[in-house]
Amino acid sequence: MSEPKDALRVTYHLTCAAGEDGAAKARDIALEQTAELPAAAVPPDVRVVGEVLAAERLADGRWRAVIAYRPDIVGEDFAQLLNILFGNISLKSGILVTDVHVPAALLARWRGPALGIEGLRSLVGTARRPILCTSIKPMGLSASRLADLVYRFARGGIDILKDDHGVTNQDWAPFAERVLRCQEAVARANAETGGRALYFPNVTAGPSALRDRVDATRRAGCRGVLLLPMLTGLDAAREAAAAGLAVFAHPALAGALFRDDHGITAEVLFGRLFRLAGCDGVIYPNAGGRFPWKVETCRAVNDHLRARWDGVRPAFPVLGGGVDAARVPEWTERYGTDTVFLVGSSLYAQGDVERAAAQLADAVRRYEA
Amino acid sequence: MSEPKDALRVTYHLTCAAGEDGAAKARDIALEQTAELPAAAVPPDVRVVGEVLAAERLADGRWRAVIAYRPDIVGEDFAQLLNILFGNISLKSGILVTDVHVPAALLARWRGPALGIEGLRSLVGTARRPILCTSIKPMGLSASRLADLVYRFARGGIDILKDDHGVTNQDWAPFAERVLRCQEAVARANAETGGRALYFPNVTAGPSALRDRVDATRRAGCRGVLLLPMLTGLDAAREAAAAGLAVFAHPALAGALFRDDHGITAEVLFGRLFRLAGCDGVIYPNAGGRFPWKVETCRAVNDHLRARWDGVRPAFPVLGGGVDAARVPEWTERYGTDTVFLVGSSLYAQGDVERAAAQLADAVRRYEA
Repeated sequence: MSEPKDALRVTYHLTCAAGEDGAAKARDIALEQTAELPAAAVPPDVRVVGEVLAAERLADGRWRAVIAYRPDIVGEDFAQLLNILFGNISLKSGILVTDVHVPAALLARWRGPALGIEGLRSLVGTARRPILCTSIKPMGLSASRLADLVYRFARGGIDILKDDHGVTNQDWAPFAERVLRCQEAVARANAETGGRALYFPNVTAGPSALRDRVDATRRAGCRGVLLLPMLTGLDAAREAAAAGLAVFAHPALAGALFRDDHGITAEVLFGRLFRLAGCDGVIYPNAGGRFPWKVETCRAVNDHLRARWDGVRPAFPVLGGGVDAARVPEWTERYGTDTVFLVGSSLYAQGDVERAAAQLADAVRRYEA
Repeated sequence: MSEPKDALRVTYHLTCAAGEDGAAKARDIALEQTAELPAAAVPPDVRVVGEVLAAERLADGRWRAVIAYRPDIVGEDFAQLLNILFGNISLKSGILVTDVHVPAALLARWRGPALGIEGLRSLVGTARRPILCTSIKPMGLSASRLADLVYRFARGGIDILKDDHGVTNQDWAPFAERVLRCQEAVARANAETGGRALYFPNVTAGPSALRDRVDATRRAGCRGVLLLPMLTGLDAAREAAAAGLAVFAHPALAGALFRDDHGITAEVLFGRLFRLAGCDGVIYPNAGGRFPWKVETCRAVNDHLRARWDGVRPAFPVLGGGVDAARVPEWTERYGTDTVFLVGSSLYAQGDVERAAAQLADAVRRYEA
């Protein structure tokens, strides 16, 4: 075993059944996630089994365990990182990943977002104020109608126009046509307003199509993409970031992991893993919207996304899931200005989306001063 | 809306909070998973919103709701199918997908396993008996030592030698070298025994590397692969199946979905979605092993994998997670002979794996008669 300080150190909160011992459960995890053999059957010269650094009873009857894994068992892919953190043990119970220390060897390999908060600010041309984002939707509209929405939102002053996460490659708005039309629309709006709005197409697809769509996105002149990493694997974000694109991640399916006693906490999944995989912005539900999310969870995710982390650029929290345009100033006060607000329904509901967008853009402009 | 009989019909079991109405919750799902806009803001000519076909109170206070979705909102990718079934609503609570009816239009597009039970039986050269599988492990062994295990298990009579799911592309056994050595080892064993054992490498990786590894697998002469679809996306299975390869799916991370009141049931995820995506075998934990799985769950998964399904080949349940070699005959009696038994630790623990494998192979040979 290498020195623990160079190890991938994972903190688990364990909920034990009657008669189950937390320390034994921790040792079981260390084997299950690595050699996947009884300790006696592991060849003595093979030292891949996780090392339990701590296992202590918590006040609430749960246990806290810290396991160190050799970084070289991770190889090069995020799929394998997630596999080690929670692959097989997802099929057990009472195991929650609450913290992950990523050693320098892995940080150097992955590096995180291509742009980060600073890079995205400079693309959008704003130094301080919150950034505004909306979803281009609903699916079912033709590519031209979606492009018209891009144009109107961009004219109104929304910074980032992203495809809705359900807009992929349906017959009524094929990917290739949509990207060209929407990118043309945002460029036209920018030329008229002098603005620097960006269009991010949804490139979520199977492995081959995804690679092709990332290429098509770059060729079209887009500067970023939308991805659903829990449906493509986190390595898709890594590849898009390596192509120099900004990556906005959508949390579809991620909710399956957010159980109180089993899974991965939102701040670890979004604030560490998504960020390290290369996401410049992580979309997730704000408190007080359509999803049952708490302000404390949002704060924890925000803190993890923005925290200093050796060589890994900070990423934007992108708060969505029913953010009311009228409350954006209030949420800015609560969360700070290094926040992207993804406002959809409450702009669409106003009918004239350009005007609705302009009002919202006015409301955040004062934070630029 | 198209006719419900041509629709993607999803059955949800809903658990309602105090004061929450099941029918309203169903309507909310139908909007959330499609237009993602308030009903009034959906353009009247856009008919993508799901239609609630039924919403009824169950005896236990839960609700059963059936929602029909137009198949054309799915496009071509499994990522989008999973997105519609459980993407955004994963971030809510009390929503369990318990059944999915896939319309003919989508079945014709995806088609399922390249080989299925019959095709895999003919590759392995057995008409009736259970098929035997083992994992080549642990990670940390060199490619030559892994290949030596392949050789010995194949000599002993194990049909399918698959990489352990944690064996990817680590420095000590790089993918390219491992595939060549292990494939050579299984071919040598077959030449000596007259057997037809197969080696399935783990091709799990990011989108680009995955495509390359599938190609390398075919070039090496392997007939199948191991995949972790919840870490690569299900479309990776579809692509491997389209390349004519047998696909064994490993359930890493899938456990996050198996909550009693929120997620996707194991029989739907494994027995419908994994199968339809192209998996010829789906690995999952047997009851009575290291994982807390029940016999009834195993039976439901087995039934779904093997059931007749227009044009979609039946797939093998691959029971693992601590199957004791000595109990394989007992489990065969319970589950039937169209079963793959993935026996790992209990063979390794015997030291002489060739001999341990030969004993197990003897025990299932009588089912061939």
